[in-house]
Amino acid sequence: MASRSNIKESIGKPIRCKAAICRKAGEPLIIEEVELDPPKAWEVRIKILCTTLCHSDVSMWKMDSGPLVKFPRIFGHEAVGVVESVGEHVEEVKEGDLVVPVFLANCGECSDCKSPKSNQCTKFGNVYTDKMPRDGTSRFRDMKGEVVHHYLHVSSFSEYTVVDVTHVVKITHDLPVDKACLLSCGVSTGIGAVWKVADVEEGSTVAIFGLGTVGMAVAVAAKQRGASKIIGIDLNPEKFEIGKRFGITDFVNPSDCKEKEKSVSEVIKEMTDGGAGYCFECIGLASLMADAFNSSRDGWGKTIILGVDMHGSPLSLSPYALLRGKTVTGSFFGGIKPKIDVPFLAKTYLDKLNIDDFISHEVGLEDINKAFDYLLEGKSLRCIIRMNH
Amino acid sequence: MASRSNIKESIGKPIRCKAAICRKAGEPLIIEEVELDPPKAWEVRIKILCTTLCHSDVSMWKMDSGPLVKFPRIFGHEAVGVVESVGEHVEEVKEGDLVVPVFLANCGECSDCKSPKSNQCTKFGNVYTDKMPRDGTSRFRDMKGEVVHHYLHVSSFSEYTVVDVTHVVKITHDLPVDKACLLSCGVSTGIGAVWKVADVEEGSTVAIFGLGTVGMAVAVAAKQRGASKIIGIDLNPEKFEIGKRFGITDFVNPSDCKEKEKSVSEVIKEMTDGGAGYCFECIGLASLMADAFNSSRDGWGKTIILGVDMHGSPLSLSPYALLRGKTVTGSFFGGIKPKIDVPFLAKTYLDKLNIDDFISHEVGLEDINKAFDYLLEGKSLRCIIRMNH
Repeated sequence: MASRSNIKESIGKPIRCKAAICRKAGEPLIIEEVELDPPKAWEVRIKILCTTLCHSDVSMWKMDSGPLVKFPRIFGHEAVGVVESVGEHVEEVKEGDLVVPVFLANCGECSDCKSPKSNQCTKFGNVYTDKMPRDGTSRFRDMKGEVVHHYLHVSSFSEYTVVDVTHVVKITHDLPVDKACLLSCGVSTGIGAVWKVADVEEGSTVAIFGLGTVGMAVAVAAKQRGASKIIGIDLNPEKFEIGKRFGITDFVNPSDCKEKEKSVSEVIKEMTDGGAGYCFECIGLASLMADAFNSSRDGWGKTIILGVDMHGSPLSLSPYALLRGKTVTGSFFGGIKPKIDVPFLAKTYLDKLNIDDFISHEVGLEDINKAFDYLLEGKSLRCIIRMNH
Repeated sequence: MASRSNIKESIGKPIRCKAAICRKAGEPLIIEEVELDPPKAWEVRIKILCTTLCHSDVSMWKMDSGPLVKFPRIFGHEAVGVVESVGEHVEEVKEGDLVVPVFLANCGECSDCKSPKSNQCTKFGNVYTDKMPRDGTSRFRDMKGEVVHHYLHVSSFSEYTVVDVTHVVKITHDLPVDKACLLSCGVSTGIGAVWKVADVEEGSTVAIFGLGTVGMAVAVAAKQRGASKIIGIDLNPEKFEIGKRFGITDFVNPSDCKEKEKSVSEVIKEMTDGGAGYCFECIGLASLMADAFNSSRDGWGKTIILGVDMHGSPLSLSPYALLRGKTVTGSFFGGIKPKIDVPFLAKTYLDKLNIDDFISHEVGLEDINKAFDYLLEGKSLRCIIRMNH
C-alpha cells in the first residue's frame, strides 16, 4: 500500500486516499478514506486536481430507487487531473499527462466513433453504469472492504480515480486547470450544441430554456456565432443579470407569462416574429421540451434537447407542427466527440470566450457539501472543488 | 360566356366547363358543368391537361366534419396544364405556358421564401383553405349559382381552374405531361425528402414506412443516392414486388412481426445492425411515426415525417432516446420550394429516374371515381385522369 505522498511507489499498487462518498440518497457526502486499485489493462489512474458539481450529479444523488441507484457511491464527472499510472495496452497517455476524464466513451474504432455524425460510441455506450466498462467491477473499496460504486465512468469526488482509457482526453499543460475542468461536461455541452448540433448562424434568434451552466454556455457560443437575439427563459429572475455576461439579450420568466395569461411559447413567438430559429432545452423536463418545440418557428425551427429527463415522461409533439418544417434533435454532451472536440474546444474557446464567469465558487474537498448547497439554492453555476494534494 | 372551344374569346369572361364535384363526404364525385370566373389580379386560369389522385384528396373526401370540411367542393391538387389567361400584375407566366399548379405557396418575397432552409411561405401559408388566398372568395359556381369550394389552392378535378400565381410553377414544353403532373405533390415529396430534408448519403440504410407514391419516390431517390439497404414497411405484401422496381431491397410486413411477437422497430434494428440511418413516415399516423423513430439508429438516426396526420393524435417520443443523437424532422412537400425545385426536379430527375412506373392506371375525367377505387383497393400508385379537351 502506497501513501499519497509517494506516487512513484504507488505504481501497480492500491492507493489509499480521501473521497466524498454518498451513502444514502439526498444525504450529505461523507469524506472517508478509500482504497483504489491500480489500473487494469486499458485503464488510467488519475490524480484529480479539481472537480466540479454538475446537475446530473445532483439528480442521481437525489434518486432513491430504480435500477440506476447504487450506494455507497463516489459521484463527480467534471474534472481535470494528472495521470498517475496506466494499465497494460494504454499508449495514448502516460504518467504526468494532464487529462480531462469524460462521461462519454470514445473508443475511436466503432462505426459511430469513426463517423463525423455521431458521438455515441457503440462499443462502450452504457453511460449510466456503476462499474468499470470492461470487467464490470469497481476499483474503489471503503475502509471496511465494501465495494464503493463508480459514477458515469469518472467518480471524480476523490483524490484519485481509475477511468477507462476510452473516457480520458489528453490536454496541453498550458491550460488553467479550473477552466479545463469545465470542459468535462456542462460548458462543452452548451458550446457543442450550438456549434455541432444546431450550427447556429449569424443573425439567428435563439431561445434557451433553463439558465444553468449548459444554458449559459449555449448563450456564450450563440453570441460568438453572431445570433441577433438570445432569449433566456428561467424561473429565477436573477438569471437575467448573470446571463447578460454570457450573451443573454432578453429574458422571459414563465411566472410572468402566467400572470399575463400567455404561454411561454406565445411570448417567445411575439418576441421573434413567429418563433425562434433555435430553441435549446437545458433542464431535462418533457413539458419544457414541448414548450421549446412550440416556441420554434415554422419553416426551419430547430429544438435541441440537452437536458436529461430523469422522470421517464414522454415528449408529446404535434405531427402537424413538425410538418411545418420543424426539427427536434437531442444530444448527449452537445454532440462533442471527446477525444477530437475537447482538445479543439480547449485550444479554440478557452481564451476567447467568457469561461471565467462560470466559476462562481471554490471550495476544498472537505467542503464539498457546500457546492451542493450553492447549486440547490440556484446561487452557483460551477463551484470548483479543489483537492488538497 | 365563352364556350370551351373558343379559348381566345373566353379571356376576361367566365368559362363553362366540366368538373368532378364532391357534394357529400365519401360519396362518388359527380361530373357537372361549372362556371369559372376569369382570373383576378395575381391569378392564373389554367386549362388542365391531366391530373392525378393523391391520398390527401381521399383523406379530405372521407372527412365529414370539422372546420376543414366544405361541400360542394372540387378536389385535386396534382396536375399539369396550359395557361389560358392571366389576371392583372401576373408577369411570371403568360397564355400558352405549360404549368404545374402546387398546393404550397411560394411568394418569393417573405423571409421563408428567401431562405434556403424553408419551403413554408410565411405570406401565404394557409394550406387547408377552401378559398382563393387574396380575397377569400371562390371562382367556381355550379349551374344553380351556388358557390363550389376550392381545395388546396388547386382544384384540378376540373377542365379549367383558377390558381393564385404563388401556386403556379412554369415548366418547359418538352416534358411529357403525364410525368410532369406527378411533380405536383407525391413524387416530388418523396424525392425532395431524400435530397433536401434527409440528405441521404451513399451506403446508408433507409426504412420507408408506407409504400404509396411518396414512399416509392423515397425509394427511387434513396437508390439514386446509393443507399445500401432500402427497407419497405407495408401491410400489403404485394408492395414488395412493386417496390423492387423503385429500389426497395428488403421488406417488412408488420403483420408478420406480430406473429413473431416482435415489434417492427426490433425487426428493423436487427436488419440494420442497430437501426436505420433514415426512417421516412409516409402515411400520416402518429403510431407509425413513433415506430419509425424507434427504428432509427442511435448516434445519427433521422426520422422524416412526410405523412399528414388527420386524426390530431400527438406523437409521443422518449426524450432519452432523442438524447442518443436522434433527430425527428417534418416537411410538407419534402422541403421542395415549388418555383425553384420543381423545375430543377423536372430537368434533373424526369428522364433519369423511374417515374413511369408510378403511373399504374389512366382514365378520362368521366371515370374519375375509378381512380378512387384503384387507390382505396391499394391497386394504384398514380392514376392519370385525362381531360377530354
